[in-house]
Amino acid sequence: MTITDRIQDLGWNQRYGDDDERPTAPSDVVRLQLAHRSVRRFLPDAVSDDDLRTLVAAAQSAPTSSNLQPWSVVAVRDPERRRRLSTLAARQQFVADAPLLLVWIADLGRARRLAESREHKLEAADYLETALIGFIDVALAAQNAVVAAESLGLGSCYVGAIRNNPEEVAAELGLPPHAIAAFGLAVGRPDPTERAGVKPRLPQQAVLHHEQYDAELADAHLAAYDERLAAYNRRFGLDGAWTDRVLTRLAGPESMAGRHRLREALERLGLPVR
Amino acid sequence: MTITDRIQDLGWNQRYGDDDERPTAPSDVVRLQLAHRSVRRFLPDAVSDDDLRTLVAAAQSAPTSSNLQPWSVVAVRDPERRRRLSTLAARQQFVADAPLLLVWIADLGRARRLAESREHKLEAADYLETALIGFIDVALAAQNAVVAAESLGLGSCYVGAIRNNPEEVAAELGLPPHAIAAFGLAVGRPDPTERAGVKPRLPQQAVLHHEQYDAELADAHLAAYDERLAAYNRRFGLDGAWTDRVLTRLAGPESMAGRHRLREALERLGLPVR
Repeated sequence: MTITDRIQDLGWNQRYGDDDERPTAPSDVVRLQLAHRSVRRFLPDAVSDDDLRTLVAAAQSAPTSSNLQPWSVVAVRDPERRRRLSTLAARQQFVADAPLLLVWIADLGRARRLAESREHKLEAADYLETALIGFIDVALAAQNAVVAAESLGLGSCYVGAIRNNPEEVAAELGLPPHAIAAFGLAVGRPDPTERAGVKPRLPQQAVLHHEQYDAELADAHLAAYDERLAAYNRRFGLDGAWTDRVLTRLAGPESMAGRHRLREALERLGLPVR
Repeated sequence: MTITDRIQDLGWNQRYGDDDERPTAPSDVVRLQLAHRSVRRFLPDAVSDDDLRTLVAAAQSAPTSSNLQPWSVVAVRDPERRRRLSTLAARQQFVADAPLLLVWIADLGRARRLAESREHKLEAADYLETALIGFIDVALAAQNAVVAAESLGLGSCYVGAIRNNPEEVAAELGLPPHAIAAFGLAVGRPDPTERAGVKPRLPQQAVLHHEQYDAELADAHLAAYDERLAAYNRRFGLDGAWTDRVLTRLAGPESMAGRHRLREALERLGLPVR
């Protein structure tokens, strides 16, 4: 089966409605990307070792700052461990149900162990910038795996809630010092009965600036998006405009499911943010 | 031209040598990803508006935490502005030379402006976790753009050095408060005379763990990688094992080109890291 057979060639309109001018010649890869949706309901089929190797190869092919490769990934298939991780990640059922859970690790442990064994100083690892390189690089890697998965007929969904309880997740995965789970990724074959669509995004004019940032021009497009997303949400019996949801989600520490503690957790796990 | 015509079907061996078992059925997308290399020398051809729209659509199709979409991108084509940004980014010539420089912004400004206009509190935005969501989500988006670019015959290279001088970059791009340049991405048509290869990466056994992290097992594969990367580097007249380069790059604040100040810069630009 070629990619072209697999993709739904309707990503653009679902993403943007009529708010943006459609480009003339997207590639098959772009059509696959446009058709992306989160998959939270999976068939029971296992993800093969061959597919896992392919996902990791795609991930490792992503760029990485100064070739540092400051990340690792833990493949969790054991149902009991997935269930325990699901409990730590806001009890989201799809985390327990997915045949494969990839936990992506911002990992300065490898470099720290090297430095220790050679009695070399590694003081840059004490700074926020270096922890941030870990998070950015593991995100680049994981997103390559997401696109690769879709090209193989697999679906996925990120699990940011893995950061709700970083110390407990580290213990469950036996992480060494100087490593933290950045996010999870549930992977499996999509259950075709799942009702889910391609989520509309902000108009390009709201996020793309030319030469300099123009807040007034960009923000003028938010009202149209509120309407478009509300219409999409109604199809799934959900209420609420985008702007309301953003304000609720970011209201305060009580809306963060424990993640207001992230800085403390980083320090405890050996990733200081000097 | 199909993707299959465009890709070099040699990514796997260049990435891993004989250190890893090759998967049997990668997709065209995975072959494209495996063949990724940084492009730092560009033909003078402009990147069309059509291609730019395609890259942004790919970027916006990436997952984003709670649909927050906490990022923006500034497309810089003006040669004078590219030159000035290049000066701020470690004077890397390719930043000035690329026909298009995309500067990817971790952007909590949009939500902050919404909250202000509605007199709504937005206290979660004071925490490191929320700034981190900005950085992670903009990385997922940008990596989708990188893959999309390659599918269109364009090449790219990230510019982490855009974080060397965050306040000056913010001023150059007219960024509003609560927004910071996460990294740049130089984009253009690859100059075929550039001598560059697919960079070998760590063996999968060094980064992929099953069920739990096993540091000893993983680190046992570093010596083989040192040899493989040294052989690759010699082809380009470069010295040095990977482990030595990592230790040098992370030795201390003096090896960080100003980025040890990142936390201070974040606070100054209105992204506190509580």
